[in-house]
Amino acid sequence: MDLSGLYQRVGAWLDETGPVNDIVISSRVRLARNLAGFFFCGQADEAQQRQVLEFVREKLTATDVQGSLWYVPMEQVTALQRQVLTERHLISRELAETGGPRAVALTPDESLAVMVNEEDHLRIQMMANGLQLRETYERICRVDEQLEGQVEYAFSAEYGYLTACPTNTGTGMRVSVMLHLPALKMTGEIEKVLRAAKDLRLAVRGLYGEGSEPVGDFYQLSNQTALGKTEEQIIDDLTRHAVEPMVEYERRARKKLSEGKATALDDKIFRAKGILSHARMVSSEEALYLLSYIRLGIHLGRFRDVRMSTVNRLFLTAQPAHLQTLFGEDLDAGGRDRARADYIRRELAGAA
Amino acid sequence: MDLSGLYQRVGAWLDETGPVNDIVISSRVRLARNLAGFFFCGQADEAQQRQVLEFVREKLTATDVQGSLWYVPMEQVTALQRQVLTERHLISRELAETGGPRAVALTPDESLAVMVNEEDHLRIQMMANGLQLRETYERICRVDEQLEGQVEYAFSAEYGYLTACPTNTGTGMRVSVMLHLPALKMTGEIEKVLRAAKDLRLAVRGLYGEGSEPVGDFYQLSNQTALGKTEEQIIDDLTRHAVEPMVEYERRARKKLSEGKATALDDKIFRAKGILSHARMVSSEEALYLLSYIRLGIHLGRFRDVRMSTVNRLFLTAQPAHLQTLFGEDLDAGGRDRARADYIRRELAGAA
Repeated sequence: MDLSGLYQRVGAWLDETGPVNDIVISSRVRLARNLAGFFFCGQADEAQQRQVLEFVREKLTATDVQGSLWYVPMEQVTALQRQVLTERHLISRELAETGGPRAVALTPDESLAVMVNEEDHLRIQMMANGLQLRETYERICRVDEQLEGQVEYAFSAEYGYLTACPTNTGTGMRVSVMLHLPALKMTGEIEKVLRAAKDLRLAVRGLYGEGSEPVGDFYQLSNQTALGKTEEQIIDDLTRHAVEPMVEYERRARKKLSEGKATALDDKIFRAKGILSHARMVSSEEALYLLSYIRLGIHLGRFRDVRMSTVNRLFLTAQPAHLQTLFGEDLDAGGRDRARADYIRRELAGAA
Repeated sequence: MDLSGLYQRVGAWLDETGPVNDIVISSRVRLARNLAGFFFCGQADEAQQRQVLEFVREKLTATDVQGSLWYVPMEQVTALQRQVLTERHLISRELAETGGPRAVALTPDESLAVMVNEEDHLRIQMMANGLQLRETYERICRVDEQLEGQVEYAFSAEYGYLTACPTNTGTGMRVSVMLHLPALKMTGEIEKVLRAAKDLRLAVRGLYGEGSEPVGDFYQLSNQTALGKTEEQIIDDLTRHAVEPMVEYERRARKKLSEGKATALDDKIFRAKGILSHARMVSSEEALYLLSYIRLGIHLGRFRDVRMSTVNRLFLTAQPAHLQTLFGEDLDAGGRDRARADYIRRELAGAA
């Protein structure tokens, strides 16, 4: 299987031209769907799971879903490649870490990813750059309808879409946005803002969803329940009551810092550039943290010699599996830190 | 009083061409002397202290001690100027902080400084760049003899030179070297080495002597007692049993790091340069710490675009009183950190 095309570019969802891209990195809608007439994954033995896989493969490849899908059976994917797919947000950690008859189907621009036999038979994910929850939802609806024309979903008139985990039952939908909130972190307001999000029953996570800690001032905000509201309400609530206010708070915090503590802010921004353009060893966590400040610096107009597209590419390629793929699988952690520092230094030097 | 000539240059003892200058910054010999026929400073009232001051002033200015001495009565020196003199190692903290009839006499190159009415009537200090304890001792002996031709010292055939503090009695001499030991710090061997020095009854201190903590991997090593050995023995013991072995250990540690952990070493060295050439706020402690690595980088041949003379000048001018003198006394700590960052950035950019 050839994944080599992936490593040096970014998915469409990381393109820097999306709406509200100074603060919202990406929007994501995910639908959990199960097939009627098949055991749920947790109840199915391997043969039954394989039946689901074959059935879905046939339907997916026969259907013109968003153009042609690239179908990737996980059994043919090495551990390192799985990690690359995880770093690119195309598969979940769970799919990466467990064996058996599983797959993911992707569009070439990585905006659509359909995981097969993860917790549910189908996990359909649509991602877009910037704040585009409504548009992303419309796009995923078309995919969902195309699939629904091919297969029968497990559905209850009373509960809605049936799913392995009750928190997904109903719409089967989870929507999330990835926010970049460095100024709220610096002003110390972030805790208050995140608490308010939790009061709205939203989940706040790090770059890699469930179980990941926020790193580099990136926060993933998502709805926690899928029942009792329509899809449109869920999206509207998240957008109007959480994302838009947080964007506003972050902008105010950036403005306040730029006026009152411009030097403290610039110090962090320019140090980040100084370190990444000089260091000889950089961990992936530090890379994220420093790239985060460079991203902020670009948005605040502090540099003209670094492009956002370079920074976005580095966000992906600085991560362990991407780096090992580019520079050799036999690198230990120290070797990766060295390769990462060299790579980032070269990229930033060539970024003008 | 005009001290403005001092701020932008360094004393001869910071010149980068001294012997063993990759590790030994400077050598210093200090003699404590008291005048016969006058009360010791601690026993004297202000009028008696003023008598000593006038007597010494007359003798010092009448004598051709190392060419012409610049005589500075402390009562004419502002608090900020006193701190500048302390940062330049020309007066002690005690002389800077206490009032009354006190003075310091200096040679223009700052190699000789004679404090009057500190703890003893006279504290004669000779400094030189690099490892030059024996030469420095010979030079200070000539000054001591010149003075002894003019005044009568308090001297006991049994105890030697009499001093205010019994630890100085005997030779009245303290010798010290300022060592730069970043590699021993990095390898973790520094504790062992410093313990060995303490076992030899040597004192280990920071850049500013008694009561100062080691910062930026600079360690001041000095004898603790002045009795029971000749001056030559004290100097010989310190040089042969402490300084020379420590120089050897530091060189070995640098070699070991360069071979085995070159990247970890380079990482610290290049980060230091990256930070100082980009940061917008730098504290004096961080400046010392980072300049210390740049110093090491120059000695290891890692950069060609930074001169040691620039780094040595920055060691002085990055310090609070120098900085306030250059950029305005009304700067608060934050303002100093900003001025320091800007100044260092400009100096490093212009250092090629």
